[in-house]
Amino acid sequence: MTITDLRAAHHTTLANAMKANMERTFHAHWPEAPSGKIYGETANDDGLAAFQGQLNKKFDRLPAEQSWIGGEASPYGFDLGITYPQIALDDLIKRASDAQTAWQSLTPEDRASILIEALERGAKRFFEIGYATQHTTGQGFVMGFQASGPHAFDRALEAVAMAYAAQSTFVTNVLWTKPMGKINVSINKTYRIVPKGINLVIGCSTFPVWNTVPGMFAGLTTGNSVIVKPHPGAIYPIAIVIAEVREVLKELGLDANIIQLAVDTFDKPITLELVKHPAVRVIDYTGGPHFGAIVEKEAAAHGKTTYTEKAGVNCVVLDSTDDLDKALENLAFSLTLYSGQMCTAPQNIFIARDGMLVAGTNVAVSDVAAKLREKIDALVFNEKAGATTLGAIQNPVTSQRVEDVRSLGLAVIRESGSVAQHGFADARSLSPIVLQTDTSRADIYTKEWFGPVSFLIVTDSFEASISEVVGSIHEQGALSVLVYTTDPDRTITAEDAIVNAGAPVAFNFNSFVWVNQSAAFSDFHGTGANPAGNATFADWSFVTNRYNVIGVRKQV
Amino acid sequence: MTITDLRAAHHTTLANAMKANMERTFHAHWPEAPSGKIYGETANDDGLAAFQGQLNKKFDRLPAEQSWIGGEASPYGFDLGITYPQIALDDLIKRASDAQTAWQSLTPEDRASILIEALERGAKRFFEIGYATQHTTGQGFVMGFQASGPHAFDRALEAVAMAYAAQSTFVTNVLWTKPMGKINVSINKTYRIVPKGINLVIGCSTFPVWNTVPGMFAGLTTGNSVIVKPHPGAIYPIAIVIAEVREVLKELGLDANIIQLAVDTFDKPITLELVKHPAVRVIDYTGGPHFGAIVEKEAAAHGKTTYTEKAGVNCVVLDSTDDLDKALENLAFSLTLYSGQMCTAPQNIFIARDGMLVAGTNVAVSDVAAKLREKIDALVFNEKAGATTLGAIQNPVTSQRVEDVRSLGLAVIRESGSVAQHGFADARSLSPIVLQTDTSRADIYTKEWFGPVSFLIVTDSFEASISEVVGSIHEQGALSVLVYTTDPDRTITAEDAIVNAGAPVAFNFNSFVWVNQSAAFSDFHGTGANPAGNATFADWSFVTNRYNVIGVRKQV
Repeated sequence: MTITDLRAAHHTTLANAMKANMERTFHAHWPEAPSGKIYGETANDDGLAAFQGQLNKKFDRLPAEQSWIGGEASPYGFDLGITYPQIALDDLIKRASDAQTAWQSLTPEDRASILIEALERGAKRFFEIGYATQHTTGQGFVMGFQASGPHAFDRALEAVAMAYAAQSTFVTNVLWTKPMGKINVSINKTYRIVPKGINLVIGCSTFPVWNTVPGMFAGLTTGNSVIVKPHPGAIYPIAIVIAEVREVLKELGLDANIIQLAVDTFDKPITLELVKHPAVRVIDYTGGPHFGAIVEKEAAAHGKTTYTEKAGVNCVVLDSTDDLDKALENLAFSLTLYSGQMCTAPQNIFIARDGMLVAGTNVAVSDVAAKLREKIDALVFNEKAGATTLGAIQNPVTSQRVEDVRSLGLAVIRESGSVAQHGFADARSLSPIVLQTDTSRADIYTKEWFGPVSFLIVTDSFEASISEVVGSIHEQGALSVLVYTTDPDRTITAEDAIVNAGAPVAFNFNSFVWVNQSAAFSDFHGTGANPAGNATFADWSFVTNRYNVIGVRKQV
Repeated sequence: MTITDLRAAHHTTLANAMKANMERTFHAHWPEAPSGKIYGETANDDGLAAFQGQLNKKFDRLPAEQSWIGGEASPYGFDLGITYPQIALDDLIKRASDAQTAWQSLTPEDRASILIEALERGAKRFFEIGYATQHTTGQGFVMGFQASGPHAFDRALEAVAMAYAAQSTFVTNVLWTKPMGKINVSINKTYRIVPKGINLVIGCSTFPVWNTVPGMFAGLTTGNSVIVKPHPGAIYPIAIVIAEVREVLKELGLDANIIQLAVDTFDKPITLELVKHPAVRVIDYTGGPHFGAIVEKEAAAHGKTTYTEKAGVNCVVLDSTDDLDKALENLAFSLTLYSGQMCTAPQNIFIARDGMLVAGTNVAVSDVAAKLREKIDALVFNEKAGATTLGAIQNPVTSQRVEDVRSLGLAVIRESGSVAQHGFADARSLSPIVLQTDTSRADIYTKEWFGPVSFLIVTDSFEASISEVVGSIHEQGALSVLVYTTDPDRTITAEDAIVNAGAPVAFNFNSFVWVNQSAAFSDFHGTGANPAGNATFADWSFVTNRYNVIGVRKQV
């Protein structure tokens, strides 16, 4: 296998991804169904066996170090017992720096081709990645498969294609000839792509692959040496991906340390030390807003590039609809999926005190509330799909948050309860709690309640609801907003207000697309225009701030 | 005149500029020669008359305000006596904000077409702009004409074309259809360009148009409301440009306040207050490194985008050449042009103690030094072109700096002297001083000596010279580096070392292209990769960080 082979093998994949990025049409390089027909009849069994075989062992797909650490526990109620090689911080930096020169001397197309090969290899492990994700994040298996497998890999391919497109815009060499009256003067010009330096990618506990691979692959495609520092509670899924990339690099005779896994523990975190290291010049961060603000501030003080996705408070406005059942089924699914542990999950649902206009008829707030409860109940208590849709709660703090909100004395529209996860007696699983309040209790709802907590908030009017949403976007940020209205004027009002406030907006979702989903190659994830974060998967900014173009001029 | 007319009128100009940006070949939309054959036989006289007619008057091409201020003085020895409308800071911000919505609702192509029309109108005033530049910056007239006229306008057009290209990459609307087994789900998606907010552009005293229009036109093309805050000593040239843009906007019935001139005085600067205003979200800065660092820090603390060009120490390495006369003529011109007051002018010239290899023969350091003096003398004492090549010294502090460096006791290779400027008895004009030292006096030369000051620094070897240059780039930054070597291995060594340190490099310039020149559409000005600044005219980053793309999804 040579780089030339890989360029040929993945040329079409890269071209199609670039085309999809520009056209934003539906595109999926890897099918999302965890189906044996697509991925091989034994793929599920093989993946499960690989997962089970890895438990309580060293993750030896990465090279051995003197010490091995790890403390992951499944939200389904057992310890994973996996340890990972621990690399001293100075060694991480030195190895990353040493690997830099050769990697940046490849062409962007070479780098993109190598990385697509690594993704294709990784795709053969989607089922193991799915189980690894299930048992670190708490996601149901199908969601874990999709979110960390095909959906994440499409996001990675999207980033590779954007980074390649950006680097291919300008010619790399030109003979520049300036006519100066009777003579011409010629200069031979070369434009060199120079990566900014080490690209640190800091992962989160709920989407350890989906939120990590965009920065990781954008950094690699633009020639940077990348260090991934996963959340100590969700290392396994991304470790599989990193090991695959390293394997491809090794087979090509390249220095595999261009991509490294930096593992730490809850007791001895190393993230801030990495952020502060002067050789680290680009930082991708997904995680809580408190630590995210520290990362942003530290990086800004030293002129480092940051791409952050922190958190926001996602809002919904209920105004009018042609079909209340379909609308609330869609909303109920968004509230229920993975127990609200998505950065895009709705939290604050605003409704005017007059209720909703449903196909021309007024429906009272209490009736809307009752129907929302009914739709959530139908999902939660669905024998076949309820438990797997909910999954488990990643962090005990999230379970506690449900207790906390219940104690505040608001009216409960739907009570949360524990949910049995078949085969996992000790799983930490909770269904959504929905509370009702009005705008007098903004002290409660104008902050993020991460997890299965949402509020139906009664306002004076549609305009008041929009005003609440705009204020919330400005103050708390947002990754998603959902509006139900059939009124053309209100649609325009809502769209202009929400977009100009810096958040994306979805209207009248009532089928098999949900507001918490963000499709690679089509939906920009994160706008970068509100306090929820400064990054967008994957616009031009997401790739172009990772390198510089530096000119070389030679007299002819 | 309608926007539709302008789209048609400027379509080819925009397309050619975009093509030139990608291909980096020679491209000049406006010819650089201040020739009557090109710009009209009366253009010079008309421009001079306009300049003289403006002296000691209100600049009433901008709307009147209650107070008028201004204190520009020509480095050629007289006060301009022009006053400009002073707008209160709160009014500047309010007017900028009010103008925003309508401007951002235009398409990027509309904005680009309107701005090109404004540039074409402004080009009719190149001669007035040339005289205005001469008598604020001290540049000779021809340089003032070129730098603030055609060269600056080409940089503006380059920025318009890059900004338009970036915004045109993604479709604005798509029907996204996801196949889901037996059914399809369709969502109508719109992608809206949302500018980050008010774009403040802070100008400098030496290149008040060239360094201002890239940010100004990039900001406007990406939909931002722009406030230009010129240096209080160099308002007139950019005021002409701003008035032209406003005139076009008015004729189209648009709010002209999308571009405003914010004037202050040396006594009461308003820049930091503007930088700190929360509505200001993007800042372009050209100027000194001390205040630049304050701007960067203040902006970073509040998540604002900055594009800075501060200053660096530009280095030259003399190793070997086929033709020492041609090489040193080229270098002498770069040291002499505008008395070293270009951000790209060389300062530190490194030479190994063995001297230079010239067409195979060794030439001693003292002989190289003598020849450099001779070449500078030939330029300075050229009766026809000497005084106009040097121009005048913009700031008395720069003249003082020549006194200061002389007092340090280094050997003087070439002594500075005053130069008569025909017709301007009180002009502040100085020819270059060149001093000789070695690396023991790094305390002297490892800082910027802005103006006609340079050092010939004797090192142990070529390798030592390169090492000095790399250290200088890392510590002081650089806008240009020039190397003379005919050795292929040393060429590779120098190129890799300098580019990886983050500076551009030119080799063996010996004709009518100089290291301090940076050609629009071809040379990226500023790399963004060293302490001299974080901006590049005009790469992707220069435009893509000024706006966000925000998605709107509607259920079909």
